[in-house]
Amino acid sequence: MTLKIYLSGEIHTDWREQIIDGAAGLDVEFSAPVTDHDASDNCGVAIMGAEPDKFWHDHKGAKLNAIRTRKGIADADIVVVRFGDKYKQWNAAFDAGYAAALGKSLIVLHGPDHQHALKEVDAAALAVAEEPRQVVEMLRYVLSGSLPV
Amino acid sequence: MTLKIYLSGEIHTDWREQIIDGAAGLDVEFSAPVTDHDASDNCGVAIMGAEPDKFWHDHKGAKLNAIRTRKGIADADIVVVRFGDKYKQWNAAFDAGYAAALGKSLIVLHGPDHQHALKEVDAAALAVAEEPRQVVEMLRYVLSGSLPV
Amino acid sequence: MTLKIYLSGEIHTDWREQIIDGAAGLDVEFSAPVTDHDASDNCGVAIMGAEPDKFWHDHKGAKLNAIRTRKGIADADIVVVRFGDKYKQWNAAFDAGYAAALGKSLIVLHGPDHQHALKEVDAAALAVAEEPRQVVEMLRYVLSGSLPV
Amino acid sequence: MTLKIYLSGEIHTDWREQIIDGAAGLDVEFSAPVTDHDASDNCGVAIMGAEPDKFWHDHKGAKLNAIRTRKGIADADIVVVRFGDKYKQWNAAFDAGYAAALGKSLIVLHGPDHQHALKEVDAAALAVAEEPRQVVEMLRYVLSGSLPV
Amino acid sequence: MTLKIYLSGEIHTDWREQIIDGAAGLDVEFSAPVTDHDASDNCGVAIMGAEPDKFWHDHKGAKLNAIRTRKGIADADIVVVRFGDKYKQWNAAFDAGYAAALGKSLIVLHGPDHQHALKEVDAAALAVAEEPRQVVEMLRYVLSGSLPV
Amino acid sequence: MTLKIYLSGEIHTDWREQIIDGAAGLDVEFSAPVTDHDASDNCGVAIMGAEPDKFWHDHKGAKLNAIRTRKGIADADIVVVRFGDKYKQWNAAFDAGYAAALGKSLIVLHGPDHQHALKEVDAAALAVAEEPRQVVEMLRYVLSGSLPV
Amino acid sequence: MTLKIYLSGEIHTDWREQIIDGAAGLDVEFSAPVTDHDASDNCGVAIMGAEPDKFWHDHKGAKLNAIRTRKGIADADIVVVRFGDKYKQWNAAFDAGYAAALGKSLIVLHGPDHQHALKEVDAAALAVAEEPRQVVEMLRYVLSGSLPV
Amino acid sequence: MTLKIYLSGEIHTDWREQIIDGAAGLDVEFSAPVTDHDASDNCGVAIMGAEPDKFWHDHKGAKLNAIRTRKGIADADIVVVRFGDKYKQWNAAFDAGYAAALGKSLIVLHGPDHQHALKEVDAAALAVAEEPRQVVEMLRYVLSGSLPV
Repeated sequence: MTLKIYLSGEIHTDWREQIIDGAAGLDVEFSAPVTDHDASDNCGVAIMGAEPDKFWHDHKGAKLNAIRTRKGIADADIVVVRFGDKYKQWNAAFDAGYAAALGKSLIVLHGPDHQHALKEVDAAALAVAEEPRQVVEMLRYVLSGSLPV
Repeated sequence: MTLKIYLSGEIHTDWREQIIDGAAGLDVEFSAPVTDHDASDNCGVAIMGAEPDKFWHDHKGAKLNAIRTRKGIADADIVVVRFGDKYKQWNAAFDAGYAAALGKSLIVLHGPDHQHALKEVDAAALAVAEEPRQVVEMLRYVLSGSLPV
Repeated sequence: MTLKIYLSGEIHTDWREQIIDGAAGLDVEFSAPVTDHDASDNCGVAIMGAEPDKFWHDHKGAKLNAIRTRKGIADADIVVVRFGDKYKQWNAAFDAGYAAALGKSLIVLHGPDHQHALKEVDAAALAVAEEPRQVVEMLRYVLSGSLPV
Repeated sequence: MTLKIYLSGEIHTDWREQIIDGAAGLDVEFSAPVTDHDASDNCGVAIMGAEPDKFWHDHKGAKLNAIRTRKGIADADIVVVRFGDKYKQWNAAFDAGYAAALGKSLIVLHGPDHQHALKEVDAAALAVAEEPRQVVEMLRYVLSGSLPV
Repeated sequence: MTLKIYLSGEIHTDWREQIIDGAAGLDVEFSAPVTDHDASDNCGVAIMGAEPDKFWHDHKGAKLNAIRTRKGIADADIVVVRFGDKYKQWNAAFDAGYAAALGKSLIVLHGPDHQHALKEVDAAALAVAEEPRQVVEMLRYVLSGSLPV
Repeated sequence: MTLKIYLSGEIHTDWREQIIDGAAGLDVEFSAPVTDHDASDNCGVAIMGAEPDKFWHDHKGAKLNAIRTRKGIADADIVVVRFGDKYKQWNAAFDAGYAAALGKSLIVLHGPDHQHALKEVDAAALAVAEEPRQVVEMLRYVLSGSLPV
Repeated sequence: MTLKIYLSGEIHTDWREQIIDGAAGLDVEFSAPVTDHDASDNCGVAIMGAEPDKFWHDHKGAKLNAIRTRKGIADADIVVVRFGDKYKQWNAAFDAGYAAALGKSLIVLHGPDHQHALKEVDAAALAVAEEPRQVVEMLRYVLSGSLPV
Repeated sequence: MTLKIYLSGEIHTDWREQIIDGAAGLDVEFSAPVTDHDASDNCGVAIMGAEPDKFWHDHKGAKLNAIRTRKGIADADIVVVRFGDKYKQWNAAFDAGYAAALGKSLIVLHGPDHQHALKEVDAAALAVAEEPRQVVEMLRYVLSGSLPV
């Protein structure tokens, strides 16, 4: 059994690397959005031409990024959504809702400060974690039945 | 043609009333989440019993509210999602993602300050508005072909 | 908003009547399996002819009952599954799994003794109740936002 | 043609090993839930933190196990559900209902004592067996057309 | 609960009338193909223009009839398929397969002579009857729980 | 049986009126896009604000019109697509493809000059007509089995 | 591009071998039902135990065969259904209907004598052939664009 | 992550080759319709026999081509639809609608002259390009996050 996992959300800390490194040796395949902030913001106009209006500048980029995002979520068995300490992160919550409607197994990763604000997202999840290490432990358990010692 | 519309998101201003009042006479049916903040927060424990842990207190309520929310979105032709000026509003973005994955027509309603932070949500929408009045005009146009004068 | 509710499970107590009576005045439509035990057990052979082998006697009846059961679950917004104190009740758990896979909102109703044995079923539910009265309160809240006083 | 088979249900006898051993040489891939009883019961709290309330202790574990269970059933061509002599085994019946709603080919494995109680589950199945050996014979026949001699 | 029933198959006896008359007073809605043999055979060319080649003559008609047939099956809760004594009746078996793949409840109606030839069709059905009267009894039981006396 | 029919395509002749008038007395419900050319072209900017770039001017309008179009097609049993003598009419062919992928019954209406260019669209249709009168005859036949005299 | 092809229908001539041999070298994968008539008829009782009643003897076998048949059709891109000169062959027409409802590309293979009786089946097909050689030519064309010389 | 891409539309310029060559080294798999115009037009009659009527000549071919087209679109993550300067190209717009209804990521490729006529198609797309080079840049960005320099 290979688990396909999409890592959605925060792009300003190394939580993805922690999970990917921790999962070394497990039968997993990770995917993720483009996490280079500038590339992600400007990809639309860089390829399809400049837009004087910021709305359409962003619109072109967001749609191009959606090609990757939707493929990643559609192919995934598990979608992990990370909410960090900063920013609105509405795209993360959007991905969580999208994944939930497709029946994906959802794992939400956030600190205790966000507990009340994320209650609807957590309610749709099969697991809620505070640390990337816990997500790795979940993947190991789901694949092998082994618990952390 | 009757349009069924689910009004998701902000509960601290009267945007729903503005849309519902403005749409008087149109062939529309509105639904919405419970907008009484206290009832919404405490419904789970009020009916199923108290929880000492805030996480489970919220969890019970969020799941009970999901019965109404999912029914409303599943039955809707159009999901309007309103982002206000305050709070994280991750449940609004979650609803938008959920609606998008189900192929619902999405209308996003927010002020210009949130434009960049909502670019992924807007990219999944068929219309983006700043004022409830514009949503009413859209509903009238979709139903009758009449534009505002 | 009309809620369609399928009442699955135990047929030896009056829990269905308690819910239906308690929900008087709410915008709900209930459906349920045939709850006449003898009719339910013998319907297949009574209509399609006797079977000397008990397995096929039961098989004919169970399939005929499935016409009603599947219609009820497929049409429902909410499936309430009641586990009583006696019998194996595997059909109730089967209905719960069937409803969960179809994405129906699931409410499980059982006493505290069954908590551990029903943990997988409860984990798929949006609400778990011990008393029919609580299910009525949920329906009222989902429809009107009113909590019990 | 590779057959993917999910082996659901009883974890206290060696029926899975009998099927897997008997199917040696066939083009099959098996998956199953975690069958270490203690790990399965405690996985949630071991990874996500202790819960004083038994309901939430079980809830966390059941949901984490659901990540594996749903992946196994969703990927399977055939779901074999075994009902043993002891315990309520509502999770087995839940899996059978879940698999049936997804249109999976269902094989039910149980002794003659449970025939009447399982009639609704059997009615949804494409085959009912009493011995693991018979399941192996079915797999061989489905793949090769060869009957037992 | 209203049951929608599509009556597919044989058009040379009055089995449909027997069922419709017998079900008088029940909460049922029937639909059926066009049963006027000549109209059904010639509808395509009568409306869209003559065809010198019999294959295309039939093709035009069969496709036009499919508009009605597919609507009837798609809307139905129950599809009753009748196999009479004469003709190939491949369209009846086609409808049965079509209905089965859509998850409709299938009732097959045929005499004992066809038992072996229809075993695959019967295997996909929830009930097999020999007489229209039995189908009426099934509908009454499914709706009301009442068995024939 | 009520047939729901979406009338897609050409907006410069009175083919829709011919069909709607001809079908008077039949159990049909028609829907259609907004056929006021100016309103359809400018609806986006009229409601959501002007765009200096023609592409975005059109984009806003096309998306707003899609709310109506997708609702109409999604609800329809039959989608009639009319190709006239002029213009590219790619939106008509787009609607035909959209309807085909959703499994709708497709009727294509065009003159003989377009036969070769529309062969892929016609190949996905259940009927091809040259005159609105023929579409009316089809609707009458599908509903009543009556052929034109 | 690998094409997966399910070969349904007649088991008394060598049409499957002709297609498989003719397609040597093409990027195709074939599957088919068990074509050993005796094994297919008796598989149910051979594995699950004898039945005195012929109906249940056949029923057990037909359901066991359905595990293979449904897997083959569900996995296929193309379903080829062959109608021979003899027997009722209702299972072939059932498979054709099942495949059509799943949106599979359907190729029907039959002699000119059956043209009228198969008009509904042919109307659901993307191609109708009289000879296995033609099916091979279709597969070659679909994969490579090469026509027979 | 492998991207599967279907290249639909214009067959008279070398845009497919430009994209395929430009994407050398990327993890992509391309598919496309048969682009040999004569073979595509005549495949039906070449394999299944001549037709005196041009409509049926075209019909046979269009349906046979649909076996390849639907497989290509169904398997694709991304559907690129190219509109050239000449011809009606209704099959391209049909493919775009078909792909949109299946939820595929749609990229539309056309020159500025067609902007207004394609506004509904563009509105359903995640990206609109004028040059094949831009499509290659999109594929590279989606796979690797790298922008053109």
